[in-house]
Amino acid sequence: MSQLDAVLKRIDADLEASLDRLFALLRIQSVSTDPAYKDSCRAAAEFVAADLNSIGFAAEVRATAGHPIVVGKSGNGKANGKPRVLFYGHYDVQPVDPLTEWAHPPFEPRMETLPDGRKIIIARGACDDKGQAMTFVEACRAYRAVTGGLPLPITMMIEGEEECGSNHLFGFVKDNAAELKADLALVCDTSMWDSATPMVTTSLRGLVYEEVRLTCADRDLHSGLFGGAAQNPLRVLSKILAAMHDDNGRVTIPGFYEGVPELPTEVKADLKGLNLTAETFLGQVGLKAPAGEKDRMLIEQISTRPTCDVNGILGGYTGEGAKTVIAGQASAKISFRLVGDQDPMKIRATFRKYVQECLPADAKATFGEFGGSPALSVAYDNPALGKARAALTQEWGTKAVAVGSGGSIPIVGDFKDVLGMDTLLVGFGLDDDRVHSPNEKYDLKSFHKGTRSWARILAALAG
Amino acid sequence: MSQLDAVLKRIDADLEASLDRLFALLRIQSVSTDPAYKDSCRAAAEFVAADLNSIGFAAEVRATAGHPIVVGKSGNGKANGKPRVLFYGHYDVQPVDPLTEWAHPPFEPRMETLPDGRKIIIARGACDDKGQAMTFVEACRAYRAVTGGLPLPITMMIEGEEECGSNHLFGFVKDNAAELKADLALVCDTSMWDSATPMVTTSLRGLVYEEVRLTCADRDLHSGLFGGAAQNPLRVLSKILAAMHDDNGRVTIPGFYEGVPELPTEVKADLKGLNLTAETFLGQVGLKAPAGEKDRMLIEQISTRPTCDVNGILGGYTGEGAKTVIAGQASAKISFRLVGDQDPMKIRATFRKYVQECLPADAKATFGEFGGSPALSVAYDNPALGKARAALTQEWGTKAVAVGSGGSIPIVGDFKDVLGMDTLLVGFGLDDDRVHSPNEKYDLKSFHKGTRSWARILAALAG
Repeated sequence: MSQLDAVLKRIDADLEASLDRLFALLRIQSVSTDPAYKDSCRAAAEFVAADLNSIGFAAEVRATAGHPIVVGKSGNGKANGKPRVLFYGHYDVQPVDPLTEWAHPPFEPRMETLPDGRKIIIARGACDDKGQAMTFVEACRAYRAVTGGLPLPITMMIEGEEECGSNHLFGFVKDNAAELKADLALVCDTSMWDSATPMVTTSLRGLVYEEVRLTCADRDLHSGLFGGAAQNPLRVLSKILAAMHDDNGRVTIPGFYEGVPELPTEVKADLKGLNLTAETFLGQVGLKAPAGEKDRMLIEQISTRPTCDVNGILGGYTGEGAKTVIAGQASAKISFRLVGDQDPMKIRATFRKYVQECLPADAKATFGEFGGSPALSVAYDNPALGKARAALTQEWGTKAVAVGSGGSIPIVGDFKDVLGMDTLLVGFGLDDDRVHSPNEKYDLKSFHKGTRSWARILAALAG
Repeated sequence: MSQLDAVLKRIDADLEASLDRLFALLRIQSVSTDPAYKDSCRAAAEFVAADLNSIGFAAEVRATAGHPIVVGKSGNGKANGKPRVLFYGHYDVQPVDPLTEWAHPPFEPRMETLPDGRKIIIARGACDDKGQAMTFVEACRAYRAVTGGLPLPITMMIEGEEECGSNHLFGFVKDNAAELKADLALVCDTSMWDSATPMVTTSLRGLVYEEVRLTCADRDLHSGLFGGAAQNPLRVLSKILAAMHDDNGRVTIPGFYEGVPELPTEVKADLKGLNLTAETFLGQVGLKAPAGEKDRMLIEQISTRPTCDVNGILGGYTGEGAKTVIAGQASAKISFRLVGDQDPMKIRATFRKYVQECLPADAKATFGEFGGSPALSVAYDNPALGKARAALTQEWGTKAVAVGSGGSIPIVGDFKDVLGMDTLLVGFGLDDDRVHSPNEKYDLKSFHKGTRSWARILAALAG
């Protein structure tokens, strides 16, 4: 029996015990956004650190101005000369409200069997990210049990503020760059393509988030007296927002597409092969027709193409009934998802210039800035990507796909910028996991085969 | 001394006593929108009815499902053969909040002298509409005192729900049409052009008020996952609102300008002669440039031209900071000010059709209806208008102007539709009266010369 086979066997044999450990972690109410759970967050950090210490990491709970960060380092041991990986996960969870929609208490994890036979773990954090992070920890544990060590040196960094902005993580990474630096980052906080098809997330879109506040008159006006003559900020705002897209769904802001790469032909063919239909993807939320760039496939629109979205808009009278007012102010929140080499600073500046140039007489604009991060991607020919895909394909019996994600994970940018390393995103979440919602779940299969997948990936990366 | 001169002299001599009567009415807290003041509203109605009875009207407090309406009829007397006029006013007032901004209790009327020497009456309702309505009553009182009767037959209708929608007035007018019908309606609830220049308001814009609610996805979506592919109702709404005006400020909804009259050359010249500048009119609210139809004078934009205004807009995330959401819904409140023969029903229908035709795939619209009334105007060659202008010119020593108002007074429409009569709107309010706001006031000069003006107008109409 190969070493890897022995590790996989150990994972199978230890499944019950690994579930007990996961459930113990799930019972800790580590809701990071609510100060009332501060002690629980610390308890979760201490639980994780103790667990890591028990499997040979030198792990500590490190204080920050917010919730602590757990850092654990394996010795080099016999893995000398192998690349070091940094694993990132988070022990904090989303709030549970509305509590009344939970079938069972969110911090009392339980196993259930669905009508289709799938066994699921139900609890807040079952998937995001306690269940996912523990697949990696359990893979390490099995390696340690079987071989007395790890196939390659590993640094663990498990934070407690992912669900409330990771506010103290960025400074922490900068302050501890020398210690945290590795050859590759691994993250387990993403999904499978579907329940049969494993996936490596090869890119994350960047984000520029802006708030525009328009002011016209210095007070709200009566539309009977001033209607027709006074500049109306709601009308100005509508014009600006409406003009941001042309009839083909392309963003009109000058220079917006600078740095947007065309996909290699074979990658485009791979994406096409996934055959993502509007019925499947949009149908689940009551929609039918892709609303993005008309000359792009749906899968491109949501993963490899940049977007501009209006996220919020407010102005004038919005209560019940009618009020004949011309507002003095209006505001909108607008975000851009970036890909390739689009420059967040440049996009922000160009957007603001665009708005200023749209303003008619009597309209003034001010701006608020809420985050900006560039897109990130693993090169399609990165050897680690190939190794991870092969390992996943072997475990699941279905070819692992490599797809870009539409979302943004800002810390991955810091891994690149501050620590100079790529990140491999592998996760086992499913679309029906109800992440951030009541009755969050994680498939037992995701947990079990996820653990086995990490064992295979670690072996592959060490090989 | 002519009869009119005697009446004017009587008004001058009785000024102190007429102020005492006004102050007594101002002390009654007849806030109509707040059920807590129900008894006060009734008390105000009874005060008005008793006062009318004391000067020869057969006046009654008539119950409605809301606050009562006072109706008083003069006998024909020696005025036999003269046209009958219906005077409309209201005894109810706006709420007083924020109370802390009042320099003195709002229902303890007081006289003050401004630094420029103007004497003012300060109280809630001092102008709107107790002070204004009492100018007419005091003119009648003086006539009665001097001549034993009125120069022409008069029906009084003083309601108590003007400040909360006149909900029961419309049915009342319909139910009592035969009794209320007259040859001409008179209303004292408008303003002077400026403190030296009297004004007859010759037209009121109509109003169509709509709410549009757009729905796309059946829930709010994560813009990372769905951004670029999911139809965004905020974007759809912006496009619809933006397209409602062209670059020249004209409304683009098909057929919108049907029924909009061109002004007679001399009326246009009169308006031009008023020389209303953007500096004067817009400068007071921090604006500089008229934002309406580019080929129209400012005075036209706010009085004789129709408009389309976005009064409110709401959708997506509007709290502090950032949320990367694509909303499931968005809504806007939109109103149209109508002039001439524009048909509210038709405008509403055309607007809804326009919105429906703008909708892309996956966007659905529903509509809410909040009021619709046509524009109203007195013909520029109506003899009553000429008589009133001449009387006002004589009283104030400055040529009385005839200007359209941008606002809407729905009951005037019923006077036309149900009772088949025109309305002459003459009022003595000033721009600085703080109507609906704390420290509402009415100039003593408005009250005194307003009363004298009505005496002259009644004489002219009877002549």
